[in-house]
Amino acid sequence: MINDKLPKIWYGGDYNPEQWEAPDWAEDDRMFKLAGIDVATVNVFSWAMIQPDEDTYDFSFLDATMDRLYKNGTYVCLATATGAHPAWMARQYPEVTRVDVMGRKRKFGGRHNSNPNSKVYRKFAARLAGKLAERYKDHPTLVAWHISNEYGGYDYSEQSEAAFRVWLKERYGTLDALNKAWNTRFWGHTFYDWDEIVLPSELSEEWNGNRTNFQGISLDFRRFMSHSLLECYKIEYDAIREHSQGVPITTNLMGFYPELDYFEWAKYMDVVSWDNYPSLDTPVSHTAMTHDLMRGLKHGQPFMLMEQTPSQQNWQPYNSLKRPGVMRLWSYQAVARGADTVLFFQLRRSIGACEKYHGAVIEHAGHEHTRVFREVAELGRELQLLGDELLDARSAAKVGIVYDWENRWALDLSSGPSVALDYVNEVHKYYDALFTQHFETDMIGVEEELSKYEIVIALVMYMSKPGFAAKVEAFVQAGGTFVTTFFSGIVNENDLVTVGGYPGELRKVLGIWAEEIDALLPGMSNQLVMKQEWNKLGGSYECGILCDLIHTEGAETLAVYGSDFYIGMPALTVNQFGKGKAYYVASSPNADFLKGFLANLCADKQISPLVNAPEGLEAARRVKDGASYLFLLNHTENELTAEIGERSLKDLLTGESFQGTAAVPGRGVRILTEK
Amino acid sequence: MINDKLPKIWYGGDYNPEQWEAPDWAEDDRMFKLAGIDVATVNVFSWAMIQPDEDTYDFSFLDATMDRLYKNGTYVCLATATGAHPAWMARQYPEVTRVDVMGRKRKFGGRHNSNPNSKVYRKFAARLAGKLAERYKDHPTLVAWHISNEYGGYDYSEQSEAAFRVWLKERYGTLDALNKAWNTRFWGHTFYDWDEIVLPSELSEEWNGNRTNFQGISLDFRRFMSHSLLECYKIEYDAIREHSQGVPITTNLMGFYPELDYFEWAKYMDVVSWDNYPSLDTPVSHTAMTHDLMRGLKHGQPFMLMEQTPSQQNWQPYNSLKRPGVMRLWSYQAVARGADTVLFFQLRRSIGACEKYHGAVIEHAGHEHTRVFREVAELGRELQLLGDELLDARSAAKVGIVYDWENRWALDLSSGPSVALDYVNEVHKYYDALFTQHFETDMIGVEEELSKYEIVIALVMYMSKPGFAAKVEAFVQAGGTFVTTFFSGIVNENDLVTVGGYPGELRKVLGIWAEEIDALLPGMSNQLVMKQEWNKLGGSYECGILCDLIHTEGAETLAVYGSDFYIGMPALTVNQFGKGKAYYVASSPNADFLKGFLANLCADKQISPLVNAPEGLEAARRVKDGASYLFLLNHTENELTAEIGERSLKDLLTGESFQGTAAVPGRGVRILTEK
Amino acid sequence: MINDKLPKIWYGGDYNPEQWEAPDWAEDDRMFKLAGIDVATVNVFSWAMIQPDEDTYDFSFLDATMDRLYKNGTYVCLATATGAHPAWMARQYPEVTRVDVMGRKRKFGGRHNSNPNSKVYRKFAARLAGKLAERYKDHPTLVAWHISNEYGGYDYSEQSEAAFRVWLKERYGTLDALNKAWNTRFWGHTFYDWDEIVLPSELSEEWNGNRTNFQGISLDFRRFMSHSLLECYKIEYDAIREHSQGVPITTNLMGFYPELDYFEWAKYMDVVSWDNYPSLDTPVSHTAMTHDLMRGLKHGQPFMLMEQTPSQQNWQPYNSLKRPGVMRLWSYQAVARGADTVLFFQLRRSIGACEKYHGAVIEHAGHEHTRVFREVAELGRELQLLGDELLDARSAAKVGIVYDWENRWALDLSSGPSVALDYVNEVHKYYDALFTQHFETDMIGVEEELSKYEIVIALVMYMSKPGFAAKVEAFVQAGGTFVTTFFSGIVNENDLVTVGGYPGELRKVLGIWAEEIDALLPGMSNQLVMKQEWNKLGGSYECGILCDLIHTEGAETLAVYGSDFYIGMPALTVNQFGKGKAYYVASSPNADFLKGFLANLCADKQISPLVNAPEGLEAARRVKDGASYLFLLNHTENELTAEIGERSLKDLLTGESFQGTAAVPGRGVRILTEK
Repeated sequence: MINDKLPKIWYGGDYNPEQWEAPDWAEDDRMFKLAGIDVATVNVFSWAMIQPDEDTYDFSFLDATMDRLYKNGTYVCLATATGAHPAWMARQYPEVTRVDVMGRKRKFGGRHNSNPNSKVYRKFAARLAGKLAERYKDHPTLVAWHISNEYGGYDYSEQSEAAFRVWLKERYGTLDALNKAWNTRFWGHTFYDWDEIVLPSELSEEWNGNRTNFQGISLDFRRFMSHSLLECYKIEYDAIREHSQGVPITTNLMGFYPELDYFEWAKYMDVVSWDNYPSLDTPVSHTAMTHDLMRGLKHGQPFMLMEQTPSQQNWQPYNSLKRPGVMRLWSYQAVARGADTVLFFQLRRSIGACEKYHGAVIEHAGHEHTRVFREVAELGRELQLLGDELLDARSAAKVGIVYDWENRWALDLSSGPSVALDYVNEVHKYYDALFTQHFETDMIGVEEELSKYEIVIALVMYMSKPGFAAKVEAFVQAGGTFVTTFFSGIVNENDLVTVGGYPGELRKVLGIWAEEIDALLPGMSNQLVMKQEWNKLGGSYECGILCDLIHTEGAETLAVYGSDFYIGMPALTVNQFGKGKAYYVASSPNADFLKGFLANLCADKQISPLVNAPEGLEAARRVKDGASYLFLLNHTENELTAEIGERSLKDLLTGESFQGTAAVPGRGVRILTEK
Repeated sequence: MINDKLPKIWYGGDYNPEQWEAPDWAEDDRMFKLAGIDVATVNVFSWAMIQPDEDTYDFSFLDATMDRLYKNGTYVCLATATGAHPAWMARQYPEVTRVDVMGRKRKFGGRHNSNPNSKVYRKFAARLAGKLAERYKDHPTLVAWHISNEYGGYDYSEQSEAAFRVWLKERYGTLDALNKAWNTRFWGHTFYDWDEIVLPSELSEEWNGNRTNFQGISLDFRRFMSHSLLECYKIEYDAIREHSQGVPITTNLMGFYPELDYFEWAKYMDVVSWDNYPSLDTPVSHTAMTHDLMRGLKHGQPFMLMEQTPSQQNWQPYNSLKRPGVMRLWSYQAVARGADTVLFFQLRRSIGACEKYHGAVIEHAGHEHTRVFREVAELGRELQLLGDELLDARSAAKVGIVYDWENRWALDLSSGPSVALDYVNEVHKYYDALFTQHFETDMIGVEEELSKYEIVIALVMYMSKPGFAAKVEAFVQAGGTFVTTFFSGIVNENDLVTVGGYPGELRKVLGIWAEEIDALLPGMSNQLVMKQEWNKLGGSYECGILCDLIHTEGAETLAVYGSDFYIGMPALTVNQFGKGKAYYVASSPNADFLKGFLANLCADKQISPLVNAPEGLEAARRVKDGASYLFLLNHTENELTAEIGERSLKDLLTGESFQGTAAVPGRGVRILTEK
Repeated sequence: MINDKLPKIWYGGDYNPEQWEAPDWAEDDRMFKLAGIDVATVNVFSWAMIQPDEDTYDFSFLDATMDRLYKNGTYVCLATATGAHPAWMARQYPEVTRVDVMGRKRKFGGRHNSNPNSKVYRKFAARLAGKLAERYKDHPTLVAWHISNEYGGYDYSEQSEAAFRVWLKERYGTLDALNKAWNTRFWGHTFYDWDEIVLPSELSEEWNGNRTNFQGISLDFRRFMSHSLLECYKIEYDAIREHSQGVPITTNLMGFYPELDYFEWAKYMDVVSWDNYPSLDTPVSHTAMTHDLMRGLKHGQPFMLMEQTPSQQNWQPYNSLKRPGVMRLWSYQAVARGADTVLFFQLRRSIGACEKYHGAVIEHAGHEHTRVFREVAELGRELQLLGDELLDARSAAKVGIVYDWENRWALDLSSGPSVALDYVNEVHKYYDALFTQHFETDMIGVEEELSKYEIVIALVMYMSKPGFAAKVEAFVQAGGTFVTTFFSGIVNENDLVTVGGYPGELRKVLGIWAEEIDALLPGMSNQLVMKQEWNKLGGSYECGILCDLIHTEGAETLAVYGSDFYIGMPALTVNQFGKGKAYYVASSPNADFLKGFLANLCADKQISPLVNAPEGLEAARRVKDGASYLFLLNHTENELTAEIGERSLKDLLTGESFQGTAAVPGRGVRILTEK
């Protein structure tokens, strides 16, 4: 439980009363009650208000807000307000603003604008976090700490350049080691002095975002920047902990956000929280996958849904409304996949600046007679009824898909073989094939304990980190099923190729050798042709992007290429290794293949889908103390029916009982359990 | 009359003899005569020639040119030459060049390159204008002053930053007022000192042109920049007027150019002039609308067509030739809509630099035996025959469409709801529906006196400026018909939302409340379904971009949405208010709807089209002293016929008389009047 | 012969042993032998290794490498290593890095990164080249010098700005001459002091790559930059020649690379060498044209194929494998068109940094059991068998197509008439029409002796340089056939229009006058309609992009336009001039027209195609000492047959004899000769 002061699914969201006046606050209190809101995240962007100059701190407004909310029965997730520094600080200490990838010194403005390696910024940020902790640690309404906001962005200042050199010294010890790791003999880049190393930017090695001349330095820079921002988080964490123990600390993450290695971050977070902003046309399986990833950051521990919009966003190109019922449906999707909170951005809409067209519980109309408010209040009532029933319930998936930020960085930075290769897209293809067939899946990091799973899928595992291959071998040896694909095992953690034959360290467990890698032009495709029928698989399936030209070295060939000069070469292989099996998918196949393939693997491991149901119906499960909660979420507008087996199950939301089948209304939700 | 020295439609254009030699000047004189050219705009880019260094002024070339032109019977529109500063000035006083939105200090080059807040630039510009006025004020060939050239572009220099702070102090008085107007509590942007405010650029709040974090500062910056450039204009205006009274002063505008608030500028111009550069595929109604806007800047006063090309441009991607007859046709289109001059850029083509492939009266061939010259000379003869007949004639339109630059800025800067919303496009849709049905229309500013009109259309009137709603109420109260649309009345002049319910201050007159705004994805659409037949409207019409979800509060529903979850909600309403009616169009409908809708409104107000004629035939009218001039312009290649009523009308150009109908040849023009 | 030490087609490529260790070197030696490799290009990027600081030079590794290669029978093409300066130099002498077109000072990184006008860089580069020459001039394995690598890129530093002014003074003598050449009276850009001139960059006159306000300065800047980089080459050349005579010196060019005037460069190269990197979808005729251009740089002298990939590239968006046989096929294509070497980038693949996915003879697998190695070794064997047979053989083409870099710059910089006009594309259209019909063609510069040819095609010859028109007149007068097109003869070498009528100086020989130039919108087209059948031409052919509106002045009209207002005006003309004929093609026609047109011209001149064969079969010929070598290259996967005439011809590769016809297997090659 996140905090036992409030033993239910928390309900509320970001709240910025400093943008309003007293009469509005009274209305807020009244409407929070109406909506069943019990948690407000406050102080997210109040640094300039709390600290009007270098030496003055004024907590009077925050004191009053905390007290008022407490009186109203609203708990507080208290932010440290360091997500945007005050204007006076930028003017007085120019070093607190960033330098961008184009080498431009930024002036005051925006957010994500603080130089993470500025000593001044760090000093002020830690001091503020400490003062807040000291002041509010015992406030009865406090239930969680929220550090900064949506950490992100990179900095290219001289402070970061100096810190990068220090970080590199620590990582490599000697320049010889660094020169080797970065292969600097290429293009005569040998460094003879640490001070010769400059940040990889558009002024040195990079262009167009992720294009780089030197993968080594660019990869290390991303590690370093993720580390630098994490350091900022950690100094605030420590400053809080000095005064306030017991209250959980988090910062809000952003799903598949590319720039930070969240597995590294999660180690320092008491609870993961994240902001979920799908568009009208985002596949629901993509949102599901992202929830699962956020849950996987801390090995399955429930997380906080820190932000979602009750209605629409403002920063997308086309900010469509969430259709009626969709806010509730997507809220339960979060809960189904591990969220123990349902929080909104925001409780009251701003009237000025760039987020004023972002939906809110209290809209510009200012009253409760709106569709949005009615839906919010309805959900509030339901969540109160659910009480602590679902809290702390976990996933019991036996299939794990590996996702790794450093692997993504290395792929994004790669010069060749194909710009069409997108790691997250590839991962989503496999996830979606399981999702649409209602197989439970965990998204896991490379450090995860694999023995928890029957099947582990580590696709496009381009970078094979130290120990990973051995872990996979042990997993398969012991009976596990392992799946990987083309362009895996190619490089080590420094993006240096493992010579001797692809897929490098994974070659042994897979029993194959990849001699060449063909990149297909847009519009080109090849085919995976099954050598014989295999349960749900048979015939021919389109594939593309990259085609590995492989030779078996002990593995069995299940499918071959259907065209081009490598027609007949293996395209899908399986290697019996110890008690388990290791599969290699040599190209990027279409959805039909992946559905059949993954269903076959699950069948082989006696893993059943949660339900038998049409694709538009999402199924998910949480388990706790022997109890099992089956979520059925209907993402279509029409009723759909799931085959749920012969146990009698009760819907927690309606009290109805079901056996054999359960019909779910359009946009409807059921939470079925045996009691 | 612009200047009674030359009581006819002026004919000529930009003339740069300084790029040529004496034998060419003699040829120019000869060919001007052949072409009936009587006005040359000179000295537009001669600053470097006239002032070779800080202390020297050399007017000898200009003296000779003025005298030569006078001798040849060519009048002069005399430019102040400040559109591009000399290279020596940029070298000696680096502050005269601009800093761009990316923070880059510009070097010498191009035009539009002077820092409008550089004291040095202003000093030199005013001094030059003054010297010119002093020297040529009594020159017999002088008929108009032309300040600078096509003012435009923004500057981000420290001089402009300092001036911005001064301008803000004047506007807001206190930082408290400014902080409130910009809603700086959002993202903790509170300013405690004026010097903390920096210009909104890519280094602070903006990116990708009009994307901004803070609409307030970005909006004010645009106001300030329009003001800064206008200040430059005004100091030259004053310097001229110190010596030269009576001769009209102008600067050439650029139609819908986004960066300057031309309604504000027009207040300080004796006569509006503008440069008209449609492409081969620009809708003719768009050009017509732009002429009407330029006419509307000074409440209907005739304007100068300062530039158009006789044949082709050079700066478009594909610079097609004007087809035979089109130059004449488009010249009369300008006259039909209020121009009292027909001037070209340029009289003789440059042989070097970036405009050498821009068409000219005297082409590179250098002689009169060209299609272009023949067409120019033919028009020259016609304009001589027309004499002063049309001069000073006005529009008598009873329909006004409101256009407002600040509204456009606010819409362009808005973060959400949809990037598909383009203000000028939306305005053009309504204009085009009137144009193709031959209804006379004025384009007017928000400060225009509304009682001149029967119907006022203020679509996507997102920003409701102080007093505007009251003016609309008075107009409708008195019997006027008012039309507005989705996304209107949302914010005040500082882009702060008017809370309590959209469309804010316009809610009362419209009798509706807009609860939500849905943004449609590309390819999505909805429908306006008429509740019952209404004259030319019936059935269902596609609509899109944004759909307001509205509730009536006294208004009558004329049409409802045809699909999606708001099917059946009002999509078109009318509110009886006093003696008038206020219509609300809740989405962006297709052309068929708009034609029917606007025809219905006109019929309701007994406004008849000028003629009954096919779409390719443009009709326009100017009236003077009881006389009425009906222009018929055939934009197709084939003869078209208009029903003109039973009066007998005579064609000013041919002397022919028409009754009942008038056939107009392909690409032909008729100017029909009763005498 | 490039160097008679090695009297055969050189075989090998770039070799970077400094990225590897001793055991790998032994493997390299072994595999080079296996593959028949006899030349290695070494030291390309070793500056940082050889010179670890300002005062130290360490040649020990290079000594050992040279000795080892010599022992193994591998000759060395020795690079001067100045293509990328060391990091210490950038730190110690910041001036050695460039400033980019956006005005950004670059830090250390990448390559092509040295400021060509930095005295420091020039000093160090010349010193290194001199030391290498002194040390290795007599090394028995040395066969060629290779200066720097793939020169390219422009610099905008203050050093270059100062040097530009010096260069301009030399070119123009006086500011008056410069002001006239640049037409600076336009936009008041007159310069009164040399120091007022700034480089044309995004901070002054240019934007979006080739957009400029002033063609004159931008054109001169390109000349100056090509000259600056050539100066860098020349100081190294001189430093080498001081010590090492007799050994040929080259630098590797890049085909149609836009930024350098290779005709100017070739004057200072002993032998041209270039890097050939077609994509899977590059038309083979484009590659052929590029080989021909590289051959034309030195008037037909054989060149070095310095780089090609054995399998795939890494820097293209989609890096497809060369299909089996294609590496051999394209290698012979190079030889067929004048290459006397077949060299690869690279002999062993890097394991780190941006080129690690670039194919190599020795792949990451590290052994010889790969498809790629097998193909390389097979070709190695063939080349050994060929011996010196083909060395120094020349082209005997009677058709020359003119290509000129300054003309390209001027066209690319032109503001108008159409962005659709791409010089290289237009040239390729004509080349392809000859190529697919198996006519031999040379690509020549404007300084080439024209009397060598029967037909000279100078299409879109926008810039008519001094003397060119006279040369063309003499050529036609003497009986030659000359072809040019729309948008030719417009400007002089300073991009100043030749007034009096297009096509300026070419008007007389062509007997036509172009009055106007129409630019077609995308999707628009016109037609060339033949006035009567003419051999292979008849009926109507689509044309587009630009349409010149021309009048004959003595020329005969062969085709007219088929539509638009200039229907019936001449679109194809021929002028009898002296004993020859001059053709004018007034628009850009389709391939069908060009094939018939050029076949007609060849027939007229009794020029026969090399063979009669389908399009997929490429034919080329080299001649030497009376012997003739006919290359047949089958670019399809299936056998194709050529009609080769009644001589009996022997295939040098197989020994087979052919008469009448010769079948060539899919992806196969034949080299047929009479002996």
